[in-house]
Amino acid sequence: MPNQPARDLPERMARLIVHERAPYNAEPPLDRLRVSWRTAAVDFYVRSHGDLPAIDARTYRLEVGGALGRKLSLSLAEIQAMPQTTVTATLQCAGNRRADLRAVAPVSGDPWDAGAIGTADWTGPRLVEVLTAAGFDMASAREGLHVAFACHDTVDGEDYRYGASIPLAKALAPETLLAHTMNGAALLPEHGFPLRAVVPGYAGVRSPKWLASITVQDRPSDNPIQANDYKFLPPQVDPEGVGPDDGITIETMPLNSAICEPARGAALAAGRTTVRGYAVCGDRAVARVDVSGDGGRHWVQARLEEAAPFAWTFWSAEIDLPPGEHELAARAWDAAGQTQPAAPDDTWNRKGYLGTAWHRVRVTVA
Amino acid sequence: MPNQPARDLPERMARLIVHERAPYNAEPPLDRLRVSWRTAAVDFYVRSHGDLPAIDARTYRLEVGGALGRKLSLSLAEIQAMPQTTVTATLQCAGNRRADLRAVAPVSGDPWDAGAIGTADWTGPRLVEVLTAAGFDMASAREGLHVAFACHDTVDGEDYRYGASIPLAKALAPETLLAHTMNGAALLPEHGFPLRAVVPGYAGVRSPKWLASITVQDRPSDNPIQANDYKFLPPQVDPEGVGPDDGITIETMPLNSAICEPARGAALAAGRTTVRGYAVCGDRAVARVDVSGDGGRHWVQARLEEAAPFAWTFWSAEIDLPPGEHELAARAWDAAGQTQPAAPDDTWNRKGYLGTAWHRVRVTVA
Repeated sequence: MPNQPARDLPERMARLIVHERAPYNAEPPLDRLRVSWRTAAVDFYVRSHGDLPAIDARTYRLEVGGALGRKLSLSLAEIQAMPQTTVTATLQCAGNRRADLRAVAPVSGDPWDAGAIGTADWTGPRLVEVLTAAGFDMASAREGLHVAFACHDTVDGEDYRYGASIPLAKALAPETLLAHTMNGAALLPEHGFPLRAVVPGYAGVRSPKWLASITVQDRPSDNPIQANDYKFLPPQVDPEGVGPDDGITIETMPLNSAICEPARGAALAAGRTTVRGYAVCGDRAVARVDVSGDGGRHWVQARLEEAAPFAWTFWSAEIDLPPGEHELAARAWDAAGQTQPAAPDDTWNRKGYLGTAWHRVRVTVA
Repeated sequence: MPNQPARDLPERMARLIVHERAPYNAEPPLDRLRVSWRTAAVDFYVRSHGDLPAIDARTYRLEVGGALGRKLSLSLAEIQAMPQTTVTATLQCAGNRRADLRAVAPVSGDPWDAGAIGTADWTGPRLVEVLTAAGFDMASAREGLHVAFACHDTVDGEDYRYGASIPLAKALAPETLLAHTMNGAALLPEHGFPLRAVVPGYAGVRSPKWLASITVQDRPSDNPIQANDYKFLPPQVDPEGVGPDDGITIETMPLNSAICEPARGAALAAGRTTVRGYAVCGDRAVARVDVSGDGGRHWVQARLEEAAPFAWTFWSAEIDLPPGEHELAARAWDAAGQTQPAAPDDTWNRKGYLGTAWHRVRVTVA
């Protein structure tokens, strides 16, 4: 895995696996994800598209407006004085597990392992409260409306700032927040200080950081992040040949799972080994996880451990491994009985999104 | 496909593909599903577990009760005098496409082709209205409550009547109805006359016919249909060895699609052929359908035609077929970017539920 020189980065940012220094893109080693069900902010992956803005909380303003509201400008103190909600939610990059897709054929983008994911308590006002304060009338809610976010970070090498949008129904859902607090502490700069959206169940791209403004409008954001990027295309489609209306806009994240322990390439003692990992599905419960010690020929059912709506499920399983080389594998099943594809080939795509095949980890047992 | 002697059946019931005469289990040929987006009642699959009760609408009563309500007994006229809602919903048997799983290895149950599915307008009061009329207080809604249905049909060869249950949250959802009317006409006897539940997005097993009573309770129905049957188990699990708490209770149906035209084994003229079918996902939109004329090596994107929430999506595609034997294939993608498994092997299960692999149809082109 490419690991760029991390000098000049703060120590906490340098100790992650750094895919890119600027824009800063980094993920934790997988065993760090299993340290606790809520991921520490310093272990939480960072996906950024440009600079990490340095924003003064004392002068910060969030602008809220659009066709259906009056204009509203809120200070951070005013946002913190609104009714506050805490939601435990997993955020996950659309490119999580891209490395597994890259093993099939070349893809664009950073080669994320399975660590571009994390779970935290997010605290702030519900987005619906902020929209209502800006004059949005629930009676005017209708299909076809979108809530667009514009941000302070300038996309690297481009002359525009980051922006994205979500359908109004998701914006009004009780789990969707504007968060100033992560696990009880102010957001770190790399996680969006002083304010970010948290859209549980959706890909991280729809939970913008360093929020500048929110607009209710009758179309998705026309920001290139929304209009061109982060569209899922099947294997046979070349992204160069498609228009902005092609592809599936990546919102709800599909079923996925990963083995966090043992690590890839681990040297283990023969006998009983505990396998630990996570499983997650954007909008459905994880119903079952199976673990294999022989690449998928035999399976044992994992114990499901801590879970919550919109958050990952931790799981563990005991397997017996004789001496030799072995391929561990994990696959989850969701509440609708859907499972992950066995191999990445059928969902491989040139942009490397939504890598969800059985997670496979080779180990050596002596 | 086994097609039992259908003598003694009414003509409309005999002209379906009859898997079992008693209990009556039958599906339409797939081309009938494409005659119209709403399936005619006489073309709609029938899954029954026992007799088809003959109920006198004039004396019919629905009993409603349970821990949280007062007792209520409703005549059909009283049910029809409540506020009425029409929902367009697809119902699908959990065993739809079992024939494709049986081609991998033996399975139990009728070998349904892809016709154990249909879409109709269903009319009647919302279940929440009926529960509220029986004294159910929304403020008492909490996780862990279930709405159990008991029915008039005696399960064939057993000494109990049919019953099943759904979680309270789904019972309170605006799409969940008690229907007395299908496509504008009273239910046919085989579809549950005079009253059935319609639980859109869920497997048909949770939309019981010939409803006798409804009970709000703190556990799922203990009827064997709910407690033992209709649990999904992964391929490696022998249903004989599991307890009632094992397996995934089949509720929301997974992503699926089928080619309705041309028919399996069709003899076609070389050149352009129109392929037509359906795609459906219990709780997500169908985002894309791809069609292949060469068993999945190349794909074209299908046009998505009529669709609605909780209903199937019709689709069609034009493909060019040279002379020879060809395997057509269809696969759908849902709004979360999940797709169907390429082969049935990885989701094969001994009970033959949730057959969702790419639908494949072999044709001869001259």
